[in-house]
Amino acid sequence: MKFSRQGNSTVVFPVMPVVRSSACVVGPKEGKGPLREGFDLIHENTLAGRTSWEKAESLMLRQSLDIALAKAGLDETQIDFLLAGDLLNQIISANFMAREFDVPFIGLYGACSTMAEGLIIASMMVAGGFATNAALAVSSHHDTAERQYRYPTEFAYMRTPTSQWTVTAACSTVIGLAGNGPWIEAATAGRVQDNGVTDANDMGSAMAPAFADTVWRHLQDMSRKPEDYDLILSGDLGKIGSRLARQLLRQKGVDIEDRHRDAGLLIYEDSPEIGAGGSGCACSAAVFSAMVVPSMRRGELKRVLLVATGALHSPTTCQQGESIPSIAHAVSLVWKNEEVKS
Amino acid sequence: MKFSRQGNSTVVFPVMPVVRSSACVVGPKEGKGPLREGFDLIHENTLAGRTSWEKAESLMLRQSLDIALAKAGLDETQIDFLLAGDLLNQIISANFMAREFDVPFIGLYGACSTMAEGLIIASMMVAGGFATNAALAVSSHHDTAERQYRYPTEFAYMRTPTSQWTVTAACSTVIGLAGNGPWIEAATAGRVQDNGVTDANDMGSAMAPAFADTVWRHLQDMSRKPEDYDLILSGDLGKIGSRLARQLLRQKGVDIEDRHRDAGLLIYEDSPEIGAGGSGCACSAAVFSAMVVPSMRRGELKRVLLVATGALHSPTTCQQGESIPSIAHAVSLVWKNEEVKS
Repeated sequence: MKFSRQGNSTVVFPVMPVVRSSACVVGPKEGKGPLREGFDLIHENTLAGRTSWEKAESLMLRQSLDIALAKAGLDETQIDFLLAGDLLNQIISANFMAREFDVPFIGLYGACSTMAEGLIIASMMVAGGFATNAALAVSSHHDTAERQYRYPTEFAYMRTPTSQWTVTAACSTVIGLAGNGPWIEAATAGRVQDNGVTDANDMGSAMAPAFADTVWRHLQDMSRKPEDYDLILSGDLGKIGSRLARQLLRQKGVDIEDRHRDAGLLIYEDSPEIGAGGSGCACSAAVFSAMVVPSMRRGELKRVLLVATGALHSPTTCQQGESIPSIAHAVSLVWKNEEVKS
Repeated sequence: MKFSRQGNSTVVFPVMPVVRSSACVVGPKEGKGPLREGFDLIHENTLAGRTSWEKAESLMLRQSLDIALAKAGLDETQIDFLLAGDLLNQIISANFMAREFDVPFIGLYGACSTMAEGLIIASMMVAGGFATNAALAVSSHHDTAERQYRYPTEFAYMRTPTSQWTVTAACSTVIGLAGNGPWIEAATAGRVQDNGVTDANDMGSAMAPAFADTVWRHLQDMSRKPEDYDLILSGDLGKIGSRLARQLLRQKGVDIEDRHRDAGLLIYEDSPEIGAGGSGCACSAAVFSAMVVPSMRRGELKRVLLVATGALHSPTTCQQGESIPSIAHAVSLVWKNEEVKS
């Protein structure tokens, strides 16, 4: 058996899975942001015509999957596995969305790293010969997250400058064997890191060490430099986490400064309400769908490292005095005609 | 590329991954049950020496993984991926356990179906050439589940006869390329089913349709009959769900009566406190570790279909008037010298 592993922890796909399609359905705030042209459906309010925000989030997830399937020219019978996850307890947005599709379902929880976690598993399914097509759907919603993780949405508390704004969006993508790219060439799954950060309003600082660890391992395993990527996209480190992450990598002799952007800083215009940046499962996923995939298809980006970051705490663990463990999963995407080192 | 799929939705592994080891750490009630001889560590109280049940659950998870690694003669550097999940919000038992291991981590949420969900993904990782060894760890805990899903543990409410008792246990298994079996020959991932059951104290009835759907599809895809299995083990249907599941399959012309056992009915002695049976991620996992794997190694069981079932609701969705979606994932295990139909 031939192993498709590189270095200690990076998988290089011998058959590169294709991103056949991607779609993103967003709320009103995201729909007014800098990436508005790249979204497939913009809801005028965060209830999306439903009676609760939770039901709205699940609906948006279904809509994004419907659109992604249509864009790929596929129906649900051609999807072998559906993978999905979100931020809510028992990933209810994903589970209730999956109820609407007659497709074998795999539930994931990786907090805001779920997009990259799912891309890794979907790629293994396709590259391993277990699926012709696998669909991945992730979502987050400001109002459902706010009332679950923080305070009732009616309560006008003072947000700290380190706090981030959960992106209201649902994004789906179809990974398959055939299609016109971009391709997934390699993936580095994250190890859980914990630097002792206990402030649940400063996720960026909690997640920065996980991002630095995964990027460093990926570059080592692939014998590459940051310059080999046109873009290294972190999921939702925000202003504070991004600064810290770059600093941690510099200490290891890696300077990502001119290649690094953060999805949480691309999705909204800067404003005091947004705080340190956007966050949520859908933050990296929305930027992936609205910016990365189209830019690669236009040939503007040849190789992109998507590094979705996640904080793995819960309100219970914070109340019990625990610090915040975090994770970051990386997926390397290439556009064709690009020479693939392996 | 050769596809290892059979029928519409079953994956048959061209290279069969091996169950290299399994280990199970349990609480006092499980340690007094019929399977006590098969457990690796029995705690005398459900706090396991920690200050909260949540911390105890995470500790037990770590202990089970330590034991599984030792039994397989491996250390963490030889594990390529660690997959884990549990029932708690944000799967905190799994995340905090993973913090203790320096291994790429994949978080799963499949409610009580997580054991089989994880076996499917771990098997794909190994059979697809992406991992030499993958470890899977799942847990549940009566006291953490009770206070999260139902009432404060201090509150002596009247349990209905349909309610089930969450198993306090953590189980780990190592899936690899080399070793002495049992082997994983095939897997059928579940589709989400919903028969409109709204009673969160009757999970068995909610999950029975998912079990029936997955078993039926598996048998169809593999062109097999129930008699081709020495045991068809459901995860936690309990008394009521088991009866309903058998009935649903009989309506489709499949009689599993003399092959079917339910893990929730094997783990405890019958008692009014237990109600309709055991439940939880660790229910099927504990029976897998303490009974199925040892029995297969002794040659007493040649082919087993493990079908872990999960209810995919949350307290929030129940409060919002939703019914309970459910899922069941199936994994077929064989002992060597057994002819493998494919």
